This record gives sequence, structure tokens and C-alpha cells, in this order.
Amino acid sequence: MADHGYEAGRLNLPFVGIATFGKNDICADWDNLKADVAVLGAPFDFGTQFRAGARFGPRAIREASTLFSFGHAGAYDHEDDATYLPESVKIVDMGDADIIHTNTEKSHANIELGVRKALAAGALPVVMGGDHSVNIPCINAFSDEKPFHLVQIDAHLDFVDERHGVRNGHGNPMRRAAEKDYVTGLSQFGIRNVSSTAKEGYEAARAMGSDIQSVRQFRAQGVKKMIERVPEGVRVYVTIDIDGFDPSIAPGTGTPSHGGFVYYEVLEFLQGLAKRNTIVGIDLVEVAPEYDHTGSTATLAAQVLLNFLGFIFHAHGHR
Amino acid sequence: MADHGYEAGRLNLPFVGIATFGKNDICADWDNLKADVAVLGAPFDFGTQFRAGARFGPRAIREASTLFSFGHAGAYDHEDDATYLPESVKIVDMGDADIIHTNTEKSHANIELGVRKALAAGALPVVMGGDHSVNIPCINAFSDEKPFHLVQIDAHLDFVDERHGVRNGHGNPMRRAAEKDYVTGLSQFGIRNVSSTAKEGYEAARAMGSDIQSVRQFRAQGVKKMIERVPEGVRVYVTIDIDGFDPSIAPGTGTPSHGGFVYYEVLEFLQGLAKRNTIVGIDLVEVAPEYDHTGSTATLAAQVLLNFLGFIFHAHGHR
Amino acid sequence: MADHGYEAGRLNLPFVGIATFGKNDICADWDNLKADVAVLGAPFDFGTQFRAGARFGPRAIREASTLFSFGHAGAYDHEDDATYLPESVKIVDMGDADIIHTNTEKSHANIELGVRKALAAGALPVVMGGDHSVNIPCINAFSDEKPFHLVQIDAHLDFVDERHGVRNGHGNPMRRAAEKDYVTGLSQFGIRNVSSTAKEGYEAARAMGSDIQSVRQFRAQGVKKMIERVPEGVRVYVTIDIDGFDPSIAPGTGTPSHGGFVYYEVLEFLQGLAKRNTIVGIDLVEVAPEYDHTGSTATLAAQVLLNFLGFIFHAHGHR
Amino acid sequence: MADHGYEAGRLNLPFVGIATFGKNDICADWDNLKADVAVLGAPFDFGTQFRAGARFGPRAIREASTLFSFGHAGAYDHEDDATYLPESVKIVDMGDADIIHTNTEKSHANIELGVRKALAAGALPVVMGGDHSVNIPCINAFSDEKPFHLVQIDAHLDFVDERHGVRNGHGNPMRRAAEKDYVTGLSQFGIRNVSSTAKEGYEAARAMGSDIQSVRQFRAQGVKKMIERVPEGVRVYVTIDIDGFDPSIAPGTGTPSHGGFVYYEVLEFLQGLAKRNTIVGIDLVEVAPEYDHTGSTATLAAQVLLNFLGFIFHAHGHR
Amino acid sequence: MADHGYEAGRLNLPFVGIATFGKNDICADWDNLKADVAVLGAPFDFGTQFRAGARFGPRAIREASTLFSFGHAGAYDHEDDATYLPESVKIVDMGDADIIHTNTEKSHANIELGVRKALAAGALPVVMGGDHSVNIPCINAFSDEKPFHLVQIDAHLDFVDERHGVRNGHGNPMRRAAEKDYVTGLSQFGIRNVSSTAKEGYEAARAMGSDIQSVRQFRAQGVKKMIERVPEGVRVYVTIDIDGFDPSIAPGTGTPSHGGFVYYEVLEFLQGLAKRNTIVGIDLVEVAPEYDHTGSTATLAAQVLLNFLGFIFHAHGHR
Amino acid sequence: MADHGYEAGRLNLPFVGIATFGKNDICADWDNLKADVAVLGAPFDFGTQFRAGARFGPRAIREASTLFSFGHAGAYDHEDDATYLPESVKIVDMGDADIIHTNTEKSHANIELGVRKALAAGALPVVMGGDHSVNIPCINAFSDEKPFHLVQIDAHLDFVDERHGVRNGHGNPMRRAAEKDYVTGLSQFGIRNVSSTAKEGYEAARAMGSDIQSVRQFRAQGVKKMIERVPEGVRVYVTIDIDGFDPSIAPGTGTPSHGGFVYYEVLEFLQGLAKRNTIVGIDLVEVAPEYDHTGSTATLAAQVLLNFLGFIFHAHGHR
Repeated sequence: MADHGYEAGRLNLPFVGIATFGKNDICADWDNLKADVAVLGAPFDFGTQFRAGARFGPRAIREASTLFSFGHAGAYDHEDDATYLPESVKIVDMGDADIIHTNTEKSHANIELGVRKALAAGALPVVMGGDHSVNIPCINAFSDEKPFHLVQIDAHLDFVDERHGVRNGHGNPMRRAAEKDYVTGLSQFGIRNVSSTAKEGYEAARAMGSDIQSVRQFRAQGVKKMIERVPEGVRVYVTIDIDGFDPSIAPGTGTPSHGGFVYYEVLEFLQGLAKRNTIVGIDLVEVAPEYDHTGSTATLAAQVLLNFLGFIFHAHGHR
Repeated sequence: MADHGYEAGRLNLPFVGIATFGKNDICADWDNLKADVAVLGAPFDFGTQFRAGARFGPRAIREASTLFSFGHAGAYDHEDDATYLPESVKIVDMGDADIIHTNTEKSHANIELGVRKALAAGALPVVMGGDHSVNIPCINAFSDEKPFHLVQIDAHLDFVDERHGVRNGHGNPMRRAAEKDYVTGLSQFGIRNVSSTAKEGYEAARAMGSDIQSVRQFRAQGVKKMIERVPEGVRVYVTIDIDGFDPSIAPGTGTPSHGGFVYYEVLEFLQGLAKRNTIVGIDLVEVAPEYDHTGSTATLAAQVLLNFLGFIFHAHGHR
Repeated sequence: MADHGYEAGRLNLPFVGIATFGKNDICADWDNLKADVAVLGAPFDFGTQFRAGARFGPRAIREASTLFSFGHAGAYDHEDDATYLPESVKIVDMGDADIIHTNTEKSHANIELGVRKALAAGALPVVMGGDHSVNIPCINAFSDEKPFHLVQIDAHLDFVDERHGVRNGHGNPMRRAAEKDYVTGLSQFGIRNVSSTAKEGYEAARAMGSDIQSVRQFRAQGVKKMIERVPEGVRVYVTIDIDGFDPSIAPGTGTPSHGGFVYYEVLEFLQGLAKRNTIVGIDLVEVAPEYDHTGSTATLAAQVLLNFLGFIFHAHGHR
Repeated sequence: MADHGYEAGRLNLPFVGIATFGKNDICADWDNLKADVAVLGAPFDFGTQFRAGARFGPRAIREASTLFSFGHAGAYDHEDDATYLPESVKIVDMGDADIIHTNTEKSHANIELGVRKALAAGALPVVMGGDHSVNIPCINAFSDEKPFHLVQIDAHLDFVDERHGVRNGHGNPMRRAAEKDYVTGLSQFGIRNVSSTAKEGYEAARAMGSDIQSVRQFRAQGVKKMIERVPEGVRVYVTIDIDGFDPSIAPGTGTPSHGGFVYYEVLEFLQGLAKRNTIVGIDLVEVAPEYDHTGSTATLAAQVLLNFLGFIFHAHGHR
Repeated sequence: MADHGYEAGRLNLPFVGIATFGKNDICADWDNLKADVAVLGAPFDFGTQFRAGARFGPRAIREASTLFSFGHAGAYDHEDDATYLPESVKIVDMGDADIIHTNTEKSHANIELGVRKALAAGALPVVMGGDHSVNIPCINAFSDEKPFHLVQIDAHLDFVDERHGVRNGHGNPMRRAAEKDYVTGLSQFGIRNVSSTAKEGYEAARAMGSDIQSVRQFRAQGVKKMIERVPEGVRVYVTIDIDGFDPSIAPGTGTPSHGGFVYYEVLEFLQGLAKRNTIVGIDLVEVAPEYDHTGSTATLAAQVLLNFLGFIFHAHGHR
Repeated sequence: MADHGYEAGRLNLPFVGIATFGKNDICADWDNLKADVAVLGAPFDFGTQFRAGARFGPRAIREASTLFSFGHAGAYDHEDDATYLPESVKIVDMGDADIIHTNTEKSHANIELGVRKALAAGALPVVMGGDHSVNIPCINAFSDEKPFHLVQIDAHLDFVDERHGVRNGHGNPMRRAAEKDYVTGLSQFGIRNVSSTAKEGYEAARAMGSDIQSVRQFRAQGVKKMIERVPEGVRVYVTIDIDGFDPSIAPGTGTPSHGGFVYYEVLEFLQGLAKRNTIVGIDLVEVAPEYDHTGSTATLAAQVLLNFLGFIFHAHGHR
């Protein structure tokens, strides 16, 4: 029989308690992380080209995540008849990387440090942005790890090489990743409409091994086919820009683009990926709470992350 | 020829006038209700487990309903080539049940009283929540009525028996209903993702005669099949938790859950139900206006209720 | 190689600079418009029957349009492998028509004047409302032009003849247009649910040559069929009421109606129309920013207009 | 002993019940008004020169007024040791004047009709705007009444004669009033900063008998002196533009102006006026709820109106 | 020289890091509190009579408190030339009391438990509401402590004895406190306008030893006099209802009332009190973030609490 | 007689037209500025330590400024019986400085360039931030100008020298200015409560010639005395951080601090300064529209700037 938290002690309703990620413990001592999953906030947003505000993304996702924290013994999903994230999966909240205003380099370095600590502890790093430029230090932190494939969910290609000297803004991360020798390829899904990447960027991406699919192309082929486009069995890092989703459910972001993914498309894609590949790192970026008056976007981010983690560890036998 | 209200007297634009439900008359004398439909507000929200604010749901739905009140002789729908809610259908607004702060029992008792008065008058009771716990006194009020089947549109199963002594919160109503001998069965549609009901709740629900279908299961089978899952011809009470709908159209609610119904799925289901079954009562709950900055959720609630009433009375010959 | 604006001078990020339409030049001298496209604001909203506020629609659309202005040499769309709106397409922002509070006639006359000036200059007039009544002076301005077919994207039929003396409110424009001898027919797509047009209005519309299709009828037939319902090759004026779209993506409007179009349905319809017909004028109306807290609606309006213009001029050889 | 409403029947908390003004009865039969006070909504806002939205002012003030409705036997004020608005003062809510979109003349005429009905019934008319142009029909309705002095609380002089043909917008009412032979003089308090009235307007106002005082002039002289500037004992009509108050407490209005009145300045002025003069009519205008996210402005409007009514009838012996 | 936190390790900008109160450590083990100050959240709001939402008050105040957390060695105030809250003052965040939906008694009991734990640890209890009813269990928790005087900052008297059976709602706490033999008297400052307390309540309060002063009475006498109205040298518990402040700075609350305190009035009063009396407990209640769109109210709450704590410990020699 | 713009051509209501500063002409050719006043946007906000969003300050101030643009022949102020900003004062809107995301140095250099162009043209530069770090390039641009005194209106001292390498964030500008040999002294008014400047910063400021006055000190001495604290007759640059004002009127800013200035305090101070000193440059910073839901803060910024410019040129004989 289940051993629900609320049976022993507190009822712990979602609106009660300090907002850490999933109401998990904080571990500020990064040299002593003992966890399967280490969640890190990266509240950096100087890389944005339209609206700022993603610096408050981590706090917003933490608060939204409490809605899914009922003190049950794991999260039962009746559609899958599965209990996800049982107590055997240990998640800790590392707090945030230190951000230095006006200084992109130092801020990125501090994010990289956090991810390296998580990796050193053997935990799956989950980074909550911040703008998409925080993916750059995340990928940098894997320089001593085994190679992996990069899967991106996004409205924008983010493949600008350099412009006016900028190489580490939120329009550049996929280009920076593609340059790494330990990134074996890219799947860029959800890409649509105009953005900071011009035609040359698309050409460069394809030349450097990217598989670019729009929402309509994704939809036309179906989720199953899209999962199969990712090389089977390889290690995969997943970067989710919340603007890959449709503005109807993810309005709270800096550069929204109509015509995005609905919830189940991404959910089912991630569920399939978790079964078929080894997930080595995750970031979810561009949640900007000031444009998210109803909280819908942060709720989506929390719901996606918690479910994705559930799928990953379920595939690893935590049930 | 049609006898439009604006031809005789006032133009009565939607933004003009006091916000009663559908701009219908108020009847505060509950012992003299003379109506086909009696609409009651149940502004109770102490039963919520995350965001509060559903206490202002009735006022918000009333105001939103004025958008659909143009003083026409009924509401013409060109898709159905039908005129719904002609003047022959008499709707009254009963105002709100009296709510006693800090006191769930008394508040629920007052809601029950209102529904009993509507039933005594031979009117179809339509209750606007408030949180989903208000369904408990609604169902209680039917104790002297003939048995009926319960149809629920919701993201959450709401089938918790008891926890920390709580038996009448917004996570308990379907369990409470299932215990009634005059509730012959439950159809619970739209159920998805994690909620206050744990695995045991799902097992209990199924054991007590519930048919649980997720949004994706509903979608895969199609509306027609879903209507047929409800026993044919039986009396049906319909409880609609607005969070059964997708947060893209119903963000203004306490515990939103991504991946919900789109408008037409529920509309067509209710239209089919109205033709195939006798509707004996309706509640629509969990509209929380403070999280509904654009008014979209309240508009949805009003649009669903007015259309559903139209379908019901059209099926009864009011055309 | 592309000649991107940012290579020569400024980076000109979307959040930088004064908000004109697409960051194009202002031309206040309407007698010297030298442009392919002349964009005019029509900030009039006394014609609304529910929420006001569309007077700030033009400013909101202008600001939202800056998100799509990255200083590239045209907008590259990877799905179509096409570069839209290259520098050869000259767009100017005419500013707004002068609006006289309390006076519908004068305000409408000033809008008509602006459209006539655009037509006289040989530019494609694009009018940003304002409420849908601004379509009336837009159509009036074509009195000396060759006949055209009118295509409307809208939730509401807007076919009221007269009520309480009102003939030029936002419920009347399609009736007014149908009365013109130079309007050869109407395609009214997206029409659904109750509105100010009663049953007689639908009958009159059909009698006067209108093809009325709901969202579900549009969806059931498919975009391709819908394009074919519009007479082939004829000149077409397109009026887009933003409430034709679903409230999930277009909540910021005066009279929202659930069950509307998703983005791609309208986009693909307009793309097809641009290939098959000559577009002689465009208006996009009813964006009410005060109900658009996330900016989603204005973003949609800007995205639709910019893409539609791209399709039109691409079809004319600007690539 | 007090005979509180909640002792006999319902507790009737502020959030419970349909939102009429002060939760008083509706009287839609204007030929049978039996009341000391008749409250009329005038949801007209085509007269505005900046933000619209005052059309929803009446509904917002009604809802806010419920906060002050606890079902007590009158409202006890411990500072005055007085019980205001005991049951002997009968207030009814007339609902709204009929507004005809696009048509200022008809809309104004309908407002005038409502005020005339209130006057005919011997009730004190209290009109909730709507923009300040609704004061024009209010004053017109007094054409058969005895002369009175007009007291205005406002940021703007509203003394434009005519511009581009406009004579009945929200910049014109005080000029229109000053032209009446039954308006014996004007006290215009709170006037500050730039507005639609130019220098000539100020000169004309003074020439036509107006006493213009800014907020700082009011403050420097003190409330007592300001009351004494109003002719003693004469009949007084009071028009309150909510923008007379400071934007810190009244942000929800169309043309806010910094440096306005604080609450007690106006309250004490009205209290003194109620003792010293006979109040023959009241309007309170320009509450625009869409700009009033916290509800502060509507709360202020309700609090001012209810207190002012209390002062008036207390002075008449209702205690 | 100062030993600023940012010199050794992280810059720790206000927007960085998990939102605990003042970014202090969490101590979930209430039997091992080692602190001078123990901050407890009491997210209970079933006691409200108008707007709900104060359940999210603790989280909002925690987040707002981060704005004042720059990692300095204490907070330097140039006006006082004093450094408040140096590292020698140890503050811990206890998290929240467990709240049981629908059940006021159990929820209140859990709040009482938390306060008792803080007292047992010798820490100053600081409770963040929740609605004002949470003061009832706070005061109950002092039953074994030495007597004290109660100072209330509030718009409302909150002195209802019982109504419809309710004795523990947010209109009752001061009456409940006055009944305690260990509460030696009450100072109720800021009381104004109509509320749930009727005339009899005021009479009862005075009879039971209350000193009631309105904002205007407070202002007329001056802060110094008001401090002197509190018995000198006695132990004092301070309960601050955020609606004691003016809606201009504290709009985010359930029952706002115009004409409230400005910031410095309360600040200087608390500063004087801290010097003249021993503060034994504090609660700050009724912050409702959903009505606090700009965050102004939560910022005020955090600023008041942090300054008040600074004053208290400065008076005790922590400088 | 006055030559009002609306007499000749358009009525040009505030809500009509593209939002440039004061509806003045745009001059994008910075080498051909012909104006008395050159207004430049500096949409940079990477220097913020709490909330971002000031990048949209320039657009928001521009839009708000249209409320004060009625097409009159100057702005008549009845309190001063003066007409400010007659047509003889030529104002142009330069648009925005080019901002390079992630790069503080380049962005600041572009702002400096704009100010240098304005100075070269002999125009008074008026810079709209952006965060307060934009003051750094503004002051840098004066390196070839004659010395001046710096007057700051602000809640925060902004006198941090360096921390974690940051020397050009929004906590540093006054320190950077004090280091210039052409800045002869500083008046820092409004400073209050905790901020990023620690005790040492205050000591350094005083040592480097700063006169620091809190809001209460300003208030106690009175506006006249405060004006006299600024050296008489010297050239003065004025930097206004909108958070110098109280959050009640300026909530839309990154680091609000309660207890700030009311409108008239700053207005009268600036009016006196304009008479007594030569104003050589102005910046107004930290307006963050996303936290300014009612627009109150942007309205304040526009109202202060337009009035201040009026005072300056009135003192120079433009009347």
C-alpha cells in the first residue's frame, strides 16, 4: 500500500509551504549533492532581444510546481496506469546560479559551475532559465562528458553565429552547441516564422548536422516519427524553450510566436524520447512571469518538467 | 415574425444594465419561483487546495452572460438553423446562497436549501460555483428525487474519501456522490495528470461504478462514442468543472491542468446528451475571476451554460 | 548575399526604436505617399456593443510588429523556403485617421479620406482598427474603384441593417458593404454562436449573395476547399475581425466568442487567397489592448498582417 | 437596539449576492420609483479623448459597493459617532439608461429621461457614469427645477465650447452647464495641469461665473474655506469626476492627472457641503474599470457616494 | 570594517535565489529552532468576508523581502545612521503552518502550534497571514506567557463577538483577544469607515479596555502622542492588518478602505514602540497578492517587517 | 490670439497618432538635429538588480506623453497663469540609442553617442531610460562640456564603486559621475531605506562632495530650502530615477521603495531649479511598464518631463 506523506504528518496542500521545486529540499552545499536530479535556477536575461523578465522564471516555475505536490507517494497517472516519481527518486533544489548584472561572461560561468557540480555528483542536471542563452554554459559544462545529441523544442532556430559582436545572446545557443565536438547532432523541432536567425543561419545549421522541423511538419509526420528522427539509443540533452509551445498556453515569454505546439505533442515526444534514449541533461528556458498573468506558462513549465522527470526515471525502473 | 425585445423598448446592448444571469429577472422569493430554469450562485471557496477566488465566480459569470444578451427573440444559431431559448423558456436568477465564512457545513446547507427550492418549484436548478465542493450540497438536495446518473467534466477525479478529516472539500465531491443510493453511476470525462486523488481513489471510483476517460481517450473515441457511454435515456445531472477545459481558454480557475478539452468537444457532448437524456440538474464550478484577466473563462462558462440550456429546452420543444 | 540592415548600421533589436508599423517610415504627407503598402490606423471604437478599447488597437499592433523586425534583408520562412517582404516592397505608416469624439460621421469620413489617399497613390491600403465599423468607410473609399469580392474572417455576421437608428455600428458593416454595387459578393468565414445579427440578418445576407461558413464548416471542408469557395481570380478585399480567431490566442477584443480559428487555418487561407486572387485592400479590426494583458492578440494581428503582405507581394514576384 | 438584517435572515456577506448599488432593490419601472435616492447607471463613453472604458463604470461601482454592505442597521462611523443610512433612507437602483452605440444624441436623451423620472418621483438622482459628458443630459433634466449652483470635483475644467463641431464630449460639460439660466454659478475644484481646455476656456469660465481652484489652492486654504466659497444655503448639484482624486487612489480612469485630491479632502468637503447646502443631484463619472486592476478606483467611488448620501440624509434627520 | 556577504562568496542579487523570508535559512524542524526571530507563514483565508487570496500572502511577502536582501553586513539606514539587523540577529524561516481546507479549527490549531514552538525556542514569533483570523491562534499560543498589551494597526475594528455562529472569522480576532486574561488592553489604531463591526462592537471594545483611534485622530495627535497612548514599558504584541495602510500603497488586500496610513506614520510608530516597549510577538496579515499587480503591497509588508525587526533588535543592542 | 493646431487641421486627440514623445517629429538623422530639445530613448536594462523591463520605458513614456498633447498652442497652466512650451520651443524625438544585448559597453557607447550628437546640435539632451546605469554614458558624453553640478532624485544612492567587477550597473552611476572632474558636486535627494549602497558608499559620497537628503529631510526643510541647497546659478544636470517618487504613484519600476516623494514636491523643486540654474541635461530612468498596469508611472514620467521642459524654456523667455 502507498505510503503517502500526508498520512504521517502534514496535509501539505499545494498552497502551503515555501516554494522550492516540487517542494523538494534545498541543497546549497553543491559539493555534497546527493540526488538523482539536481535542479538549478539560472535567472539570467540580458540575452533577450525583445521582452526581458525571464530572470524570474526559476521562482515562477518553483511556485507553479507546488500545484503538483500533494504529498502523495508518487504521482499516479491513470492514462498510463503508472506512478511516477516515487520516493526512490531523490530530487534536490540547488537554488540559483549567481548572476552578475551587466556581466554576461561571469553570469554564464556561474551557471556552468552549477551544472558541473550536478554532473560531478552524478545527478541529472535540470536548469530553469533565464533566457535561452543559459543553454550555452549548460552545454559548456558537459565538456568532460561523453558525446550526446541535442534535442531542442523551440519556435526559433537560435543559430546566429555573430552579430555586432554578440555570440552569447539568446539567438546564438544552438550555433554554439553545434560547434562542440561532443555534440553529435541537433534535432530542432517547432521552428517557425521570422526570428533573429536569417536564411544563412538555416543553411549553416543544416550544414552542421541539424534536423529542422516546424510545428506543421512535426504534426504532419506525427509524434512517433519525430521520436524516430532522433538517433536511437544515444545520449540526449534536451533544451526546451517555452516559446516552442503555442502562445495560447505559453504567453508568458519574451518572444512569443503563434502556431506553436500543444501540450500533448511535446509531452508524448518527451515520453517516447525517455524510453528510447538516455537523457543526460535538461534545460527549460524563457518563462517570463510578468507576461504570464494567469500563471499558465509557469504551470506548463512545471507540468512538463515533472512529467518528463517521471518518464525518465520510470524508464529506469523507478515505479 | 420574431418579436425582438429591442423593437418595442430599449436597445439594451450587452454592456448596459445590471448583471444578472442572462439579464433575466431576479427572484429573491424562493418560495415563489415560477420558472423553467432557476439559476443559483454558490460563492463558496473554502474547499480549494490551491488558489481561492471562486467565490466571485457567480458574479463573473453573470457579467459575462450579458455579452450574449442582445434582446433578440431567442438566440439564432446558423449552424443548427435553430433558435434557442425563445421567450417561452423562463429563466430566473435566484441570487446567491448565503455563505457563512469559516463554516463549511452551514454554507453547504444554504446551497442545498436553494437547490431544494428550485426543485420544489419544478425548475431546472443551475448552480454557479464556487469551488467543486458545492456539488456536494447540490447532490444532497436531490435526496427526494428519482435516481440519476452523474456526468462530470473535469480535469480531476475529485474522489478522495477522507484526508486529515476533510470529507467535503473540492477533492471529495464525486466520492460523496457515488455514495448516494440515488446516484446510479458516474461518467468522469476529461480526467488527466496528477491531482489530490491518488491511485486508490481511481480504484475506488471504478469499483463504485465510475467510467473514467481522459481528454485523449475522449478525443480518440470521438464525441459520439462518449455520449453513448452514458446510459441511454436515464436522468442525468451534469457537473462541469471549468478546469476540464484547457487552460488556453479557461485560465481563470484554481487548479488549472494543461491538456484539457477545447470548446466544441464539450459543447457537442452536451448537445448530444441533451437530446438523449433528461437533464435534471447542472452545476458549473471553479471559475475564479481574479485569474481570468481577459474574462475568457467567465465568457466560456456563460457560453456553455446558455448553449446547454438552449439544447435542453430545444429538445423539449421550445424552438 | 543578403544585405541585412544590421550589417551596415545599427543592430536595431525589436525592443529598440519608435513603434511604427514594422518599424517602417512614417509618411504624414498623404498627398505624397510613395509606397506599395500604406498602413493607416483607424482608432475609432464608438461602434462597439460590449467592451470598448479598440481605439488603442493601432498603437498596440504597431508595437507588436516590432517583434518581427530584426533588420534582416526580408523575412525568411524555412517552411516555404521563401524570403518575404524583401526591401523591394516599400511599406509606409500613414499614422492615424483623425477621430472626432462623439461624432461617428466625421470620424468615418476621415478614415475614408485616408484610404482614398492610399488608393490614389497606388498603394495597397491596410487599415488597422478600431472596431469593425471602420470597415464601412474603408469600403466607401472604393466607390471609384473596380468591383471586388469581400472576404470576411469573423465570429459575427455583422449584418444588421438598422436598429434604433444605428446603421454604422460594428454590427452593420457587412450589410453596408453588401449594398454597394461594386461589391460583387461576400465570403463570411468563422461565423458562430449568438451575436447582434438575428435570424433575419442571416437570411438577408444569403439573399444578398453571401457565403456563410462557420469555423466547424471551414474545418470540415478544409482550407483548400474554402479558398475555392471564393470566386477565382477576382479582386478581393479582406476584412479580418480578430475575434474570428479563438479567444485562446485573441482574448484582447471586445466581443470574444469561443470556438474560433487557430492560427494556421487563417494563415493558410490567406496564403492561398494571395496566390489565387488580387488583394485590393485589407483591414484588421477589434484588437483591444486593455484586454490583451500578454500582448498575444496584438502579436497575432501583426504576425497575420506581415505574413499576409509577404504572401501578396511574393505572389507578385517580390522574393 | 439595532435591528440588523443579519439577525433575522441571511448573513449576506459582501461577496454574496447580485451586485446592485449597495445591494439595494432594483426598480425597473421608472414610473413607480418610491425612494429617497434613485441611482442610475449611464454607461456612455464615446465622449472620451484618451482611454475609453467608462461604460463599465456603473457595473464596477455596483460591485465595489457591496464591500460596504454588511446587512447592518445603518453604517456606524465611530469618528462621527453617527449611524448613516439607516433603513429609513430608501435607495433604489434604477439600472442603466439605454445607450445607443454610435449615437451620442439618443444616448444622452435616454440618460436625461432617467434623471427626469427620478426627479418626478421626488428622489435624489445619483448618476454613475460613463464619461463626464453624461453630466450634460443630467443637467438638462433639471430644466424644470429650481435654480442651483454647480460644484465640480475634477482635474480638468471641461469648459471647451466647441471644437471640430464637438459640443457634447467629456471636455464640454461645464461650458454647457454654465449656459443654463438655472445654473447660478460654478465651483470647479481640483483643476490642474494641461487638458483639453485651453487658456480661452479658463477665461470664459471665469467670465461666466466660475470659481476655479486647484488642488494646491484648495489645500492651502483648507477644506473649511473651500466649503465657504460655495454660496451658503443654495441648492447644489455635485458632479464628481473621479480623476479629481489622485492617481494613487483613482488610477482607473481615462485621463489621469497627477497631483490630485486625497480621500479626506473630498470627503470632508462633501460632508460640510451636505450640512450647509441642499444637494439636488449627484453624478460621479469616469471610473474605467479596465484600468483599475486592484479595484481601488471603484471602491473609492462607492465609498464616496455611500458616505456622501449618508451625510446628506443625516443632515435631514435620518440617523 | 564591514564583513559583507558578497565579499566572500556570491553577489546574491535580490532576484537570485529561492524566496525565503529575507533569504534566511529554512528551519523545518520546529523542535530545534535556534534563532532570535522565527518567521511562520499562516496561509489561511477562509475567514474573509470579501475577497479571498491571503493564503498566498506568505509566499508573496517572502518574495518581496528578497528586494531588501543585498548580502550586506546589515542594513544601513542613513537617516538614523544605524545598521540594522547585523549578522548577530539570527532569523529563521519556519515555513508554513499546515492548513486543512474546509476546516478552520484544525488550521487554526496548526498555526497555534507553530507559534508555541517559536515561543518555546525563545524566538520572537513573526506570523505572516493569511487573513486576520490567524491572529486568534497566535494569541491563543501565548496562554502560558506573561501578560501583554495588544497593539493593532488596521482599518477595521474586528470586534464582532458572534454572528450566524461565526466566532473565528477575520471580523472577530480583537474580540477574542480582549477576552483573554493575559491581554491587558488594546490599542486599535487606524480604524475607519464601515466594516463588519457594528456600533455595539465599538461600545463593547471600549468597555473591554480598548483605545480606538482613527487615522485622522492618529494624524491630529501625532506619532509621538500615539506611542504614548500605549502603556509604557509593558510587553506588547503587534498585529498589523495591511489594510490599515492606505489603498494607494496597499491595494492588494481583501477589504481595502480608503483614507489609511501612509508609510512613515506606521514606521515611526513602530520605531518608537520598539524603543519604549518589549515586543513579544508580531503578525502581519491580509496581504492578498492577486490584487497586488505591481507587488506594492507585498513590498510594503516586507519593508515594514524588516524595519520593525531592525528597530527591535537595535533597541536590544544589536547594531 | 492663440494659434491652436486643431483650428487649422486635425483635432488630433491624445489617443490618435503614432506615439512619439509629445507627438513631436522624429529626427533619425542625428547629424542634422535642429531643435531646442532632443529626446533620446535608452532602452537598456541589463544593469538592474531586481526587476528588469525598463527597456520598454521609452516606448511607455512616449505613449503616455500623448495624453498631454491636445494640439493647443502651448500648455496653459492656470495656477501659474502661464503658457508653457509654445511653438517656439522645438522638440524632436531622436528615437532610441542602439542597444546590443549581452553587451553593456557597446550599449552604453551608443547612448553616449546620441547624447553627444544632441549636445553638438546645441539641443538640450533628454534621455529616457532604461535603468539608471544609462546615466553613466550620459555623463560621459559631457566630457567636453563646461563643468556642472549633478542633481539626483532617487530612492537609492547608487554610489557603489565596484562589486564582483561590476562598475557600470544601476547601483554605480553616482559614483561614476562623482569621479569626473567636470562634475562639481552632487545633490542626492529622496534617498531612503536599504539598497545596494552600503554604509561605506554613503561615507564615500559625502567625502566626494555629495549632499544626501532623505524624503523626510526634504519634507522637513521644505522645497525652497532644498532648492537653495543646490549651488546658485551653476549649470545643473538632473537625473530622475522614477523610484524617487512614492510607489503609490510610481509602482512601475524595478526597485520600488516606500516612503517616496509626492508629485508636487518634485515638481516644485524642478520649477525652482529651472529658475535658479541652467539645466544642461536631463535623464529620467527606471520606468518599467510591465509593472505599471494602470500606466500611472509612465504618465508621471511624461508629466514631469513635459512640465520640467516647460519651466526651463519659460525661464528662458519662451512664453
